[in-house]
Amino acid sequence: MEIDVALVRAWAQRAGDMLLRSYFNQVSPERKLDRSLVTAADRAIEDWLRDQIVAYYPHHGIIGEERESVGLDREYVWVIDPIDGTSSFVSGLPMWAVSIGVLRHGQPVVGVIVLPVLGDCYWAVVGGQAFWNDTPIQVAPPQPPGPNDWIAIPSTFHRAYTIHYPGKVRVLGSVAADCCYVARGQAKAAIIGRAKVWDVAAGWVIVQAAGGVVCPLEGELPDWLTLLQMVRLPTAVVIGHPHQVSQVCAWVKRIVP
Amino acid sequence: MEIDVALVRAWAQRAGDMLLRSYFNQVSPERKLDRSLVTAADRAIEDWLRDQIVAYYPHHGIIGEERESVGLDREYVWVIDPIDGTSSFVSGLPMWAVSIGVLRHGQPVVGVIVLPVLGDCYWAVVGGQAFWNDTPIQVAPPQPPGPNDWIAIPSTFHRAYTIHYPGKVRVLGSVAADCCYVARGQAKAAIIGRAKVWDVAAGWVIVQAAGGVVCPLEGELPDWLTLLQMVRLPTAVVIGHPHQVSQVCAWVKRIVP
Repeated sequence: MEIDVALVRAWAQRAGDMLLRSYFNQVSPERKLDRSLVTAADRAIEDWLRDQIVAYYPHHGIIGEERESVGLDREYVWVIDPIDGTSSFVSGLPMWAVSIGVLRHGQPVVGVIVLPVLGDCYWAVVGGQAFWNDTPIQVAPPQPPGPNDWIAIPSTFHRAYTIHYPGKVRVLGSVAADCCYVARGQAKAAIIGRAKVWDVAAGWVIVQAAGGVVCPLEGELPDWLTLLQMVRLPTAVVIGHPHQVSQVCAWVKRIVP
Repeated sequence: MEIDVALVRAWAQRAGDMLLRSYFNQVSPERKLDRSLVTAADRAIEDWLRDQIVAYYPHHGIIGEERESVGLDREYVWVIDPIDGTSSFVSGLPMWAVSIGVLRHGQPVVGVIVLPVLGDCYWAVVGGQAFWNDTPIQVAPPQPPGPNDWIAIPSTFHRAYTIHYPGKVRVLGSVAADCCYVARGQAKAAIIGRAKVWDVAAGWVIVQAAGGVVCPLEGELPDWLTLLQMVRLPTAVVIGHPHQVSQVCAWVKRIVP
């Protein structure tokens, strides 16, 4: 494969550093960190990432949140999210991420996620191990939840579902971060809402390289080429160890309207 | 009042730096960050904080999580939590805090909370303003929730309650952090479970100095001298703007067993 993952890690780190230094918590009486400033940050970083990709890999396609897609039918397609967790970012919360995934022939093959406030990088190349910085990581083995075990859930989950999980739940505020903590075995599983493709492209590579699976909560997941056209996932999904996700699905009940 | 809040801020920052440098995410194949290492970290930092307090304020009382209480009947009592959010800390999550509160004649008068991963300090002295570092802060005014507005809830809330909040919910993993984000007006409110006194002593000073109130979800809150004896709050509480907390209480329903 022609992707240099060390280069992608360096781009994600650099993008995170720029966001930390120039935008995150840069509030003053004159300049409040509102949605418009975050949109400006999102666009500036996406443009910078696109410039790097085009310079090094001019024949690849790119899809991202802020700009038009390019070449979605090409062999390689980059799926980028300059700020995953913009609502966290706006609130001054630490959980937001730079997420860069690469598909080849419609299959996710590289995932790199940087959590800039923590200085952590999670990454994987398909067929290899998943890493937290330079440490190999694995999803948690399935076992009955202890009182301090936790799963990650979406911030709007309470509106449509109840969950009978006997441990703790957390709402981290970033789908990419959910994937990282599942891959590292700290979260026992995560429920991901109907996310956009750029929220999950990198994370799913990392979770799968760490021994996890992606299981739709309802129905089935189409292939990635279809997902790129749909942009938003058709269903919520559960990620985690193959024997854990079915248990989590069983704990979730839709609230009867 | 005889408390030097700049000194307390410096202690909390130093304690946070020690935790970051020597304990947080210090994992290796030989040394996993498990509960026993966190207990060691908790004790080492509480001992260090107690040493500072005794050296500067030898006639004050102290209550903390890890060691025996001293002089709870004295004019000043320090209420300290070296790591609020130990479960977050163990999981490598960024939301954990050093929390230092001071009571005088049974009334909370000083609150200092440091979030070491973010490098943020939230603090207040009773009768004055609340601050995020050097910026004055205030709780959010009550208004109908927008789609990106959020409230903080406890990690075990799903087991006993449903919440019909039309915005987002987040589980940050630290009660002290919940208080900080409410005081800063980023969280519109927070529901705090049946926390320990050292989880909330500093946070409530900061929330109240920022214009917020503490409202029990059920029953009434006893005075602080009684709370110090009880250690754990007798009820969950809601914190936020005075006109917001009653609305949040109305959104919460106990699940019929």
